[in-house]
Amino acid sequence: MSDTHPSGFPHLDPSGAARMVDVSAKEVTARTAVATGRVLLSPEAVTALREGEVPKGDALAVARIAGIQGAKRTPDLVPLCHPIAVHGVDVALTVVDSGVDIRATVRTADRTGVEMEALTCVMTAALGLIDMVKALDPEAVVTDVRVEEKTGGRTGHWRRSG
Amino acid sequence: MSDTHPSGFPHLDPSGAARMVDVSAKEVTARTAVATGRVLLSPEAVTALREGEVPKGDALAVARIAGIQGAKRTPDLVPLCHPIAVHGVDVALTVVDSGVDIRATVRTADRTGVEMEALTCVMTAALGLIDMVKALDPEAVVTDVRVEEKTGGRTGHWRRSG
Amino acid sequence: MSDTHPSGFPHLDPSGAARMVDVSAKEVTARTAVATGRVLLSPEAVTALREGEVPKGDALAVARIAGIQGAKRTPDLVPLCHPIAVHGVDVALTVVDSGVDIRATVRTADRTGVEMEALTCVMTAALGLIDMVKALDPEAVVTDVRVEEKTGGRTGHWRRSG
Amino acid sequence: MSDTHPSGFPHLDPSGAARMVDVSAKEVTARTAVATGRVLLSPEAVTALREGEVPKGDALAVARIAGIQGAKRTPDLVPLCHPIAVHGVDVALTVVDSGVDIRATVRTADRTGVEMEALTCVMTAALGLIDMVKALDPEAVVTDVRVEEKTGGRTGHWRRSG
Amino acid sequence: MSDTHPSGFPHLDPSGAARMVDVSAKEVTARTAVATGRVLLSPEAVTALREGEVPKGDALAVARIAGIQGAKRTPDLVPLCHPIAVHGVDVALTVVDSGVDIRATVRTADRTGVEMEALTCVMTAALGLIDMVKALDPEAVVTDVRVEEKTGGRTGHWRRSG
Amino acid sequence: MSDTHPSGFPHLDPSGAARMVDVSAKEVTARTAVATGRVLLSPEAVTALREGEVPKGDALAVARIAGIQGAKRTPDLVPLCHPIAVHGVDVALTVVDSGVDIRATVRTADRTGVEMEALTCVMTAALGLIDMVKALDPEAVVTDVRVEEKTGGRTGHWRRSG
Repeated sequence: MSDTHPSGFPHLDPSGAARMVDVSAKEVTARTAVATGRVLLSPEAVTALREGEVPKGDALAVARIAGIQGAKRTPDLVPLCHPIAVHGVDVALTVVDSGVDIRATVRTADRTGVEMEALTCVMTAALGLIDMVKALDPEAVVTDVRVEEKTGGRTGHWRRSG
Repeated sequence: MSDTHPSGFPHLDPSGAARMVDVSAKEVTARTAVATGRVLLSPEAVTALREGEVPKGDALAVARIAGIQGAKRTPDLVPLCHPIAVHGVDVALTVVDSGVDIRATVRTADRTGVEMEALTCVMTAALGLIDMVKALDPEAVVTDVRVEEKTGGRTGHWRRSG
Repeated sequence: MSDTHPSGFPHLDPSGAARMVDVSAKEVTARTAVATGRVLLSPEAVTALREGEVPKGDALAVARIAGIQGAKRTPDLVPLCHPIAVHGVDVALTVVDSGVDIRATVRTADRTGVEMEALTCVMTAALGLIDMVKALDPEAVVTDVRVEEKTGGRTGHWRRSG
Repeated sequence: MSDTHPSGFPHLDPSGAARMVDVSAKEVTARTAVATGRVLLSPEAVTALREGEVPKGDALAVARIAGIQGAKRTPDLVPLCHPIAVHGVDVALTVVDSGVDIRATVRTADRTGVEMEALTCVMTAALGLIDMVKALDPEAVVTDVRVEEKTGGRTGHWRRSG
Repeated sequence: MSDTHPSGFPHLDPSGAARMVDVSAKEVTARTAVATGRVLLSPEAVTALREGEVPKGDALAVARIAGIQGAKRTPDLVPLCHPIAVHGVDVALTVVDSGVDIRATVRTADRTGVEMEALTCVMTAALGLIDMVKALDPEAVVTDVRVEEKTGGRTGHWRRSG
Repeated sequence: MSDTHPSGFPHLDPSGAARMVDVSAKEVTARTAVATGRVLLSPEAVTALREGEVPKGDALAVARIAGIQGAKRTPDLVPLCHPIAVHGVDVALTVVDSGVDIRATVRTADRTGVEMEALTCVMTAALGLIDMVKALDPEAVVTDVRVEEKTGGRTGHWRRSG
């Protein structure tokens, strides 16, 4: 396309100015995106989360709900993101020995993909979780946050290579 | 304290219900927190960002501003976080060979610490950056997001161990 | 459906985890919802509102506008609600001897119903009203907030039984 | 005061125009407010909530978190409310035979009271709960939402009369 | 139409009460709006902005991004505005001798026009710019903010007369 | 100061990167700011607004409330603005022959000034007004938006020169 910046970033116009790319002519199609990430925690925090599961504590619920709400806030957080009709969100949190694995699936029928929504979901779930455990483990680390898979739109099915 | 959950999480009451811990009796003191993280990118995306720097493209500015605004949105994103008067935010983005290093410093004079604000700043800066480069590099990974250092409050100066 | 929680709540997955149910395959149809409620007030506050009507005071306008804006904020307030394109909102406030009756009608052409938007509209109008009168009547009570009627979608026309 | 509307509403100026009353000269003091309310539900929905408690379903957690976040959003929802530093929130949800009782306690050290925050907390918790149960019980009713008690500020301790 | 206020304002019902006009029956069509405005600045501030352009300072980027995000926040800011799917935003800032010219183009495929979004974009870009320069020029003036042109919808192409 | 950009903009660091300047060491003092602006309207729209005043239509109330809420949203809209405790807002709208004059007064006791809040108040009031009249007058123009006066803080009393 002739109206992009030499860098190739679609969010920049030829002069380098930020813009929101026009997607009004794109088709409304069903789209999904899956993103994952991990919060590394101390053994003490992992134990507390596991025990927290038993007496129905809200520890993981807080992180799940933070993730779902974060997905809806994506256009507020990411300056050039289009507001999008988020139509479905699942956040799976799995307590593992080294911490908590997060997997977010976001679905929509709209004009642009939802990978940013899936990433935002993972990151806000991670923030909610860290806020919960920070008194026990101030050294939590968020790692490996990434898009795993996308469907829909012009690109069709995409899966990361490695 | 007798009014906490067996897990030790202060955000849970003895029955396991989520709550916002009362900090109204804590003192207003100057506090800072530093958090860091890294976005791993393809060589192609790194090159584009470096070139983008030259003709004053807004690529990194978008990420910096996303981070600063994200710090202000922390209580909206993290369900049990206290609304806090964010008094200063610096976001340093350094393009390195493997991607972009992010370092956020948040300052306040308030009743509770700003480590969640610093982490949120890093994460939203990372989201803003990934949104910018995603057409060139759909495989970006956010990694090593963590609190490095805190000052102020009852704990005083804290620095992560490793 | 086999993928729901034993409780029957669609917002919970089989393990009990909160989720945003996928509605991307639902049809876009015209939908409406009507909700009502009442704010019980002291005779003194009712008199002040009635007099306030005469010299064009903004007392009821504040409540009406709070209600309309509240309807738009529903997905921010209700964690598992879908963001929805609110296409029309009417809020009728009627000063009666015992207080103020609120009736909200919300319209959309979207994939899911607007009863939560109508309820949120009534509740935020009630909050705006109470905030206005609280210096005169600190004992205001909100009561009988409920959905009266819905049209559109798979269910078609629904009206509450009693 | 000579600069108020004949109605006596402090939020209206003498001409009846809405305003945010100046509180900058008020003292920062510790303040609390307690508000309560009830969501009336069908026996079927009550049973589902009670069962939901056992296998750690997030049903009540969603409502609790909605309430806590709602308290923080009060100045966004109530047009003339001052932005306030919410310093602590507890939301107790008790499943009773006729539905769910909600009791919110909000604490702050700031220049104005938190009764609107406590009421908003109850109402958004109620909205979160209704959204959860609406597929099972579309006839839920929110009732008896009111401030029970306040402490702090010029008024000191206030408790509703009946 | 018989159901409007004598003033002719569609946002008022026959009794004068504010409402959000129902647009659910309007067609989804491609629409654009262009708005412009100018920020008058001191020669000192203009010089600083021009120099700021050279060493890639973020001064104008902040204003551009504020404008794009402002366009997305229109339904939060304008009480009776419909939430709309903003599909594209361009903000051109041109430093001229007397200050900065702002030109915003907003695009959508939705049921109602985007002139309010274009105006909000210009105004928030102006706010972002004034915030940047206010230490150097506390006397900045925003002037001539107006809609220039609209396309789409029932009205078709509209261009202001003078 | 040695740590500022050559342009002299405090919001830029020496490298030109946007930042939120640290105000945590500034004193909490009472501060006010007054901003004004004008919306130029057609005679037809002015007549409708004047008639709207008589039968207590909400036309001007919508603009006033938009302004008050806009003042509270300033840190969301202006990227580098500090979140501030807005303690009082007055918005005076005066219908004149050429349109509507807007005058906003914002008060706080905080660490930084409220001129951006006052400007945002004027601009969002103007947006709310234009949205109200746009069906009658699509050619409305916002003009002469500017800070008139400030008190408090290190600068003390400041009044614009002309």
